[in-house]
Amino acid sequence: MARPVTLFTGQWADLTLEELAAKTSAWGFDGLELACWGDHFEVDKALEDDGYVQAKWDLLNKYGQKCFAISTHLVGQCICDPIDERHKSILPPRLWGDGDPEGVRQRCAEEMKDTARAARKFGVDVVNGFTGSSVWGMLYFFPPTGQADIDKGYEDFANRWSPILEVFKQEGVKFGLEVHPTEIAYDIVTARRTLDAIDNHPNFGFNFDPSHFIHQFIDPVFFIDEFPDRIFHVHVKDSRVQLNGRNSILSSHLDFGDPRRGWDFVSPGRGDVSWDQIIRALNRIGYQGPLSIEWEDSGMDRDWGAPEALEMIRSQDFTPSTVAFDAAFASDE
Amino acid sequence: MARPVTLFTGQWADLTLEELAAKTSAWGFDGLELACWGDHFEVDKALEDDGYVQAKWDLLNKYGQKCFAISTHLVGQCICDPIDERHKSILPPRLWGDGDPEGVRQRCAEEMKDTARAARKFGVDVVNGFTGSSVWGMLYFFPPTGQADIDKGYEDFANRWSPILEVFKQEGVKFGLEVHPTEIAYDIVTARRTLDAIDNHPNFGFNFDPSHFIHQFIDPVFFIDEFPDRIFHVHVKDSRVQLNGRNSILSSHLDFGDPRRGWDFVSPGRGDVSWDQIIRALNRIGYQGPLSIEWEDSGMDRDWGAPEALEMIRSQDFTPSTVAFDAAFASDE
Amino acid sequence: MARPVTLFTGQWADLTLEELAAKTSAWGFDGLELACWGDHFEVDKALEDDGYVQAKWDLLNKYGQKCFAISTHLVGQCICDPIDERHKSILPPRLWGDGDPEGVRQRCAEEMKDTARAARKFGVDVVNGFTGSSVWGMLYFFPPTGQADIDKGYEDFANRWSPILEVFKQEGVKFGLEVHPTEIAYDIVTARRTLDAIDNHPNFGFNFDPSHFIHQFIDPVFFIDEFPDRIFHVHVKDSRVQLNGRNSILSSHLDFGDPRRGWDFVSPGRGDVSWDQIIRALNRIGYQGPLSIEWEDSGMDRDWGAPEALEMIRSQDFTPSTVAFDAAFASDE
Amino acid sequence: MARPVTLFTGQWADLTLEELAAKTSAWGFDGLELACWGDHFEVDKALEDDGYVQAKWDLLNKYGQKCFAISTHLVGQCICDPIDERHKSILPPRLWGDGDPEGVRQRCAEEMKDTARAARKFGVDVVNGFTGSSVWGMLYFFPPTGQADIDKGYEDFANRWSPILEVFKQEGVKFGLEVHPTEIAYDIVTARRTLDAIDNHPNFGFNFDPSHFIHQFIDPVFFIDEFPDRIFHVHVKDSRVQLNGRNSILSSHLDFGDPRRGWDFVSPGRGDVSWDQIIRALNRIGYQGPLSIEWEDSGMDRDWGAPEALEMIRSQDFTPSTVAFDAAFASDE
Amino acid sequence: MARPVTLFTGQWADLTLEELAAKTSAWGFDGLELACWGDHFEVDKALEDDGYVQAKWDLLNKYGQKCFAISTHLVGQCICDPIDERHKSILPPRLWGDGDPEGVRQRCAEEMKDTARAARKFGVDVVNGFTGSSVWGMLYFFPPTGQADIDKGYEDFANRWSPILEVFKQEGVKFGLEVHPTEIAYDIVTARRTLDAIDNHPNFGFNFDPSHFIHQFIDPVFFIDEFPDRIFHVHVKDSRVQLNGRNSILSSHLDFGDPRRGWDFVSPGRGDVSWDQIIRALNRIGYQGPLSIEWEDSGMDRDWGAPEALEMIRSQDFTPSTVAFDAAFASDE
Amino acid sequence: MARPVTLFTGQWADLTLEELAAKTSAWGFDGLELACWGDHFEVDKALEDDGYVQAKWDLLNKYGQKCFAISTHLVGQCICDPIDERHKSILPPRLWGDGDPEGVRQRCAEEMKDTARAARKFGVDVVNGFTGSSVWGMLYFFPPTGQADIDKGYEDFANRWSPILEVFKQEGVKFGLEVHPTEIAYDIVTARRTLDAIDNHPNFGFNFDPSHFIHQFIDPVFFIDEFPDRIFHVHVKDSRVQLNGRNSILSSHLDFGDPRRGWDFVSPGRGDVSWDQIIRALNRIGYQGPLSIEWEDSGMDRDWGAPEALEMIRSQDFTPSTVAFDAAFASDE
Repeated sequence: MARPVTLFTGQWADLTLEELAAKTSAWGFDGLELACWGDHFEVDKALEDDGYVQAKWDLLNKYGQKCFAISTHLVGQCICDPIDERHKSILPPRLWGDGDPEGVRQRCAEEMKDTARAARKFGVDVVNGFTGSSVWGMLYFFPPTGQADIDKGYEDFANRWSPILEVFKQEGVKFGLEVHPTEIAYDIVTARRTLDAIDNHPNFGFNFDPSHFIHQFIDPVFFIDEFPDRIFHVHVKDSRVQLNGRNSILSSHLDFGDPRRGWDFVSPGRGDVSWDQIIRALNRIGYQGPLSIEWEDSGMDRDWGAPEALEMIRSQDFTPSTVAFDAAFASDE
Repeated sequence: MARPVTLFTGQWADLTLEELAAKTSAWGFDGLELACWGDHFEVDKALEDDGYVQAKWDLLNKYGQKCFAISTHLVGQCICDPIDERHKSILPPRLWGDGDPEGVRQRCAEEMKDTARAARKFGVDVVNGFTGSSVWGMLYFFPPTGQADIDKGYEDFANRWSPILEVFKQEGVKFGLEVHPTEIAYDIVTARRTLDAIDNHPNFGFNFDPSHFIHQFIDPVFFIDEFPDRIFHVHVKDSRVQLNGRNSILSSHLDFGDPRRGWDFVSPGRGDVSWDQIIRALNRIGYQGPLSIEWEDSGMDRDWGAPEALEMIRSQDFTPSTVAFDAAFASDE
Repeated sequence: MARPVTLFTGQWADLTLEELAAKTSAWGFDGLELACWGDHFEVDKALEDDGYVQAKWDLLNKYGQKCFAISTHLVGQCICDPIDERHKSILPPRLWGDGDPEGVRQRCAEEMKDTARAARKFGVDVVNGFTGSSVWGMLYFFPPTGQADIDKGYEDFANRWSPILEVFKQEGVKFGLEVHPTEIAYDIVTARRTLDAIDNHPNFGFNFDPSHFIHQFIDPVFFIDEFPDRIFHVHVKDSRVQLNGRNSILSSHLDFGDPRRGWDFVSPGRGDVSWDQIIRALNRIGYQGPLSIEWEDSGMDRDWGAPEALEMIRSQDFTPSTVAFDAAFASDE
Repeated sequence: MARPVTLFTGQWADLTLEELAAKTSAWGFDGLELACWGDHFEVDKALEDDGYVQAKWDLLNKYGQKCFAISTHLVGQCICDPIDERHKSILPPRLWGDGDPEGVRQRCAEEMKDTARAARKFGVDVVNGFTGSSVWGMLYFFPPTGQADIDKGYEDFANRWSPILEVFKQEGVKFGLEVHPTEIAYDIVTARRTLDAIDNHPNFGFNFDPSHFIHQFIDPVFFIDEFPDRIFHVHVKDSRVQLNGRNSILSSHLDFGDPRRGWDFVSPGRGDVSWDQIIRALNRIGYQGPLSIEWEDSGMDRDWGAPEALEMIRSQDFTPSTVAFDAAFASDE
Repeated sequence: MARPVTLFTGQWADLTLEELAAKTSAWGFDGLELACWGDHFEVDKALEDDGYVQAKWDLLNKYGQKCFAISTHLVGQCICDPIDERHKSILPPRLWGDGDPEGVRQRCAEEMKDTARAARKFGVDVVNGFTGSSVWGMLYFFPPTGQADIDKGYEDFANRWSPILEVFKQEGVKFGLEVHPTEIAYDIVTARRTLDAIDNHPNFGFNFDPSHFIHQFIDPVFFIDEFPDRIFHVHVKDSRVQLNGRNSILSSHLDFGDPRRGWDFVSPGRGDVSWDQIIRALNRIGYQGPLSIEWEDSGMDRDWGAPEALEMIRSQDFTPSTVAFDAAFASDE
Repeated sequence: MARPVTLFTGQWADLTLEELAAKTSAWGFDGLELACWGDHFEVDKALEDDGYVQAKWDLLNKYGQKCFAISTHLVGQCICDPIDERHKSILPPRLWGDGDPEGVRQRCAEEMKDTARAARKFGVDVVNGFTGSSVWGMLYFFPPTGQADIDKGYEDFANRWSPILEVFKQEGVKFGLEVHPTEIAYDIVTARRTLDAIDNHPNFGFNFDPSHFIHQFIDPVFFIDEFPDRIFHVHVKDSRVQLNGRNSILSSHLDFGDPRRGWDFVSPGRGDVSWDQIIRALNRIGYQGPLSIEWEDSGMDRDWGAPEALEMIRSQDFTPSTVAFDAAFASDE
């Protein structure tokens, strides 16, 4: 039983959902993971307008596309971040308001609660997203940063997210943090610290995305084996380290696609992620959810790349063994 | 002619200068690079009190120690940084004042000008230090960060430092930025962008410290060859990458010395820096200044490590060749 | 002319031969390498019952499957091994008898002679299998083990197998030892020592299986080039080294499929074997026999894996060159 | 828009052009890159006989094959080389004449001018080829070789090729040197030195072939980025380094195909060239020309290999991105 | 405070203890780790003869040599092993007796209890040694070996050693197993399984010897960090992997010193052990015991090698840091 | 018994022998390997003037310097090479004469015979040197070069050197070819081919110099093990590969010391040669001759480097083991 393969719509927000669903249907995708920005999935409308949700399903059904999760990276980012001008461009006016940092953070926290409610109404069990972090900027310890400074960041996260997660619990929805630099958890150690901060809240887990581990030189398989019961969703995204003694792994404040960067995102299957190993690990922990392609590659046309990625992951998503080999050696008389 | 080897006093600020000079003299160092914090070198006293400078020299001479440079990382850091509580702990009250960010930045900028004046009065030609950066925290582009956002950081740097560098020029003193994450320049690409931002101001260059390149996977030799006329001073400091598939190169907000970090500083000679290659590159560009050991290793006693490092770099600082080998093959009849 | 691709039936003994032949026929295999356990090929019945052999061929022909070799790993293992309880489970009662070690060894030696006779009657020229070893357990020399101790193991092998090989010679059948830890030969050095022990008996050679060399860090190509005239049969099986500093290459007495092992078998094409290099080497020595997939991967469904492996090896089994390239450069006027 | 894929005919000179065109047409190639030896493209006949060129096109059109470049490696090699007996076998009698070295070189230089004229007449804009070199044999500096000795080689090249390149300029044809050991340029440094020697003549550039960089351990992508406006044509050819501590990278004067060589050519896709990286680099510089497979693999049948290589390069030649990803994150309200 | 460095006398049993003590004293060792074979330390005499122990101390004191541990690898090996002829050569006649396997095992178990008593009487707190294993020979699972088979080996170990460890407990002596292939524990996983089998008996731990991990590709540092409170003693021994594609990591039943082996022991400092990392790990866990050189290198004279190893480990055994570096940055005004 | 360490005088020909002997004596060398160019050892004078040889020994004895070999690379090079202007600069006028290539080659062949005679008269048993090669320039097969072309080069070598080697045989002197690119043998394969060409003449062997194998990626230890009875002399010289994706291993016709080269010579101990492995191999074959430092490093002062190299090789030249370790385990009762 192969897992369903969906496409995350975040990088296709310039297309209408119908245009996109027509494409993915033709390419053979099983469904879509809807981004809560642009008009692919609008939390406020879903809650206000009883017909909104049905209309979405009608459209998806028209193209034979399923949906298992919605994603809200942009709003999530603004819940714990120190807010600056860049955040204005990723929020709708109703959330940005006057831009006062604390006000922005609180409005986004409320929006996140509503997102859980909208997911329930829409009928999906998983919301993926970011959390932001008040201590990310303290990476590379100068001025000297003590563990007390870092601890404050995790307390801030717990304070802001615990009430949100209670709503998720009430609604029976899980939040999957996409572990990622700039977030409260960006590797194995900080993911553990994050879970500790919220006493392993049962509705908080991870949207596993191996592409964010590659440039940190973390083997993504370790993450799966470390948190087997917290893998709520999986992104199929790839990245590639391209160091040559001049490129920095920190990438020099250069845009994606610039060959002087030390690493970059590439179409799934063309990077350093070992998909065979990841499928085995997912088989091991019994993950049965979708494999959702998040397609991003600054050097390739996306209409070339998305079907290529689909074919790649389908050929990798093999069925686990159900036969014990040694049994076959036993004499049966 | 071997280069003089000095010890940077920053990590020894808990000792009086005399205690430290007695140690380094006994170990066989040629001199000290004085940190402008603690009481090793106090800019304000040097400018106010005509006897201060002489007293310092008397003390140094008593122990046969030379001085080629002073260093002011802490004040420099506060010139471009977004200021938060952590900066309070690295500044004296007279510079912190009420802690208003812009006020702190401007007081530190003035202090930096004074540092150039104090260096001149003290009789050294180089001031090493940090610059801070308003855009460092925008590492790892989320929220989405355009090149226009980054450009603003370099303009801010140019606006704040150009007047400072003019004072350096008047005083005939050079500023050597220690290229380092958290600073305006942290690799080859950003060092070039920094020089561009200030139109290659002649008094701005680098305190070359290879330990900050190792964990970025940059070959430090490339840096020397890229900026041959801007290597104003050299730190002998080492670091080691210790990745095992679980450790992140970003080091998980863990303290130095924690084995779960992806990299760490180690006593010079025990890390990944290839000192032989660096000496050859310094020979190539004709660098004649001191080799200043910045000793930092959370797993080793510093009184064990500093003399070990001295012996290591002395054995590496060989004399370049003056004979063309092929010449010896020529028959001389 | 591509080589025929067969499937070794040993890991499919839970299926009847007909069920299996139906599968392999549908997948496009050329044939089967029959295991002499379960009911795929029964040596005693083949010799006793004149209709047995014909019935097997009828069944194979019904599905268009060829057969080039039969394999008898289990019986072979018991010829030289110190016998313990584990051997009971791999032998039929008629060979185990009362389990007295020497009796078991002698009954298995006679069965091996019969296997040669049955192969001749069945019309195949190659019997693959194991030999066992009385000295394998002396790996890692403690208690101290002298070469005299090891020599005894090779003498024991020669004494037990020389009469067997004479029967192979009479029948015109070749025995292909699958070089493998636990056998008298498990690498290049011990394969040479084995051949020396039996004076290079012409009917003794190897069933080349690269998967057993990978975790020993031997390049399988060296084996082919070392014994070009002794490659009697080829197994297409793959394995992967998965070391991370915690896993031992000795694999800690853990079952296959446990991710804490230092190596494991994987579906052919997904491991560390370089099939392109192996095909080139087989072309070089003129091997024309079958490529027999021995499929074993504890993390993948075998019905997914076997056809995948078939497609992989077919795409690799290219035709060698018959044109001298430089010739094309010569002007022909 | 995928680039056209052609086959270089040099290694197929034993076939008539029609035989070859029938094959490449059936395999799905877009066209051929004609070698100027054998009878695939004869410069003298093209200039003498007005019907010759038309007949070639008729034949190509019959099989739906295009042509974008012709290649003249053999004649080019003889322009700067010290001439010995080996050159006789690669030239037609009319160019070899009495074999006097300087006479051979001058006749080949004239032939090269004619090749530009014939290309123009035939209607293609690029001639690929070699240049030879009077200093190649001075590789590995013994007897001691000064830079003055090397400089003479580049002067000799400039003297012989400048008049030739003027003819190319008049005809509006570009010459693409296949950078290659034995030629005046064989790596990045010598390619730069070559361009300097002829003052960056606008009609001189490169037929980029990554297979010649692999065994020099040069990343071919650096070459493209170093000379973005000089990539006139691209060869798809692959090679593989096969060092094991005994094999020399210099390959011991052994023929291609001997496994004791330290490197060898292999069918494109089976070697060490990273085609994905090369396509990205070609996209970056805007190269729009053909990808011409030069197929050479001493261990594989060419009729197996050429279609395999075609499929490989087609699957790699993806379209670059035209969407800015960050744009998709922007809220549109 | 550097740790004392001792020499393990096992490989010097051909010398009298006095000859050896004279050597080690002259070389500058701090003491000896006495082997319980030959006449260096005789358990039976120590218990029988009240003057024996004092005479040993007089001799050691005469040469200024300390003693922190005794070692009994040979007797320990015979407690769990299947006994064969090789064991006869490593036991005195009084323990071998008639050679009946179970009798040998039980006599050796009693001797081990006496060794604890002798250690107490002699005044040392640690006995190092081996345990043997009834399941080691089942490495490489053929015939198929289930976890039930393996479990039996650990039960056998627990049954035989639990009474022994109770005697150790009564005597206040610790047993340090040298984790090693052929023993019940040979890597991290099996060391854990061993501790589990005896319910983490407080008197059972490890004589950490990194040389036995290197050829298993285990990072010895992981072992220290995994069992921080069970490192009872440390051996300084080194080994080197020497794979070239022909050598097997299993070493082909070849003697130490044969260059065709895949790995070999070498003089400490010349192998693949990273001593710097090990000293840091020992500092981290607070190990204060001796560093005991077990010198073995088939290619070097031991009188050359032992002092070399002493110098090496002394230069590596640095003092850990006691200063928090960031503290030095804090302004103290 | 440590081997004597000498310094090869070839790179010090600008000093008089007395100046050099005074240096090497002070540094602690055991002796000198005299170059037959400049005035260190003049073959013609040695044969003509009976006092010449005695005067050399008097001078060497005055400084306590021994001599085991003389070297004649320059004359040797001219015996098989195609002669061009570069050879003029390495020969004295009496050998260059009118520069006619064949005349030069024959005069040098006669000089080589005289060198054997002079070595005998001087009392040394080994002459080291080069041979030249008529086929070296045919490296990288273009124009296409058949094995017949290469064979001619080995025949030419055999024809020219067989008479020379007969003189060596008469004089009881051995010739040690320094295997090196530009010579008839430059790796393992060509060294074998060279020996075959002269029917393994007993007076022809090798001056083993590992530095010439490093950039060919050959493990020098393989060479020693391949030709155990042909290692007549050993050079201690080192080199380093410095590839970064831009540097070619062919080194771009750049001078030694240019950092853009792909490899370079460095002071022994600072390169990629594993001296420990080489000493073990020399111990294995029983080589008892000198270790002669050929010091060449374009980036280091030779007066710094030569003593450093001496200390390095002395610390590596350990004595092999004479004790069988297992013996020590045997119980002696």
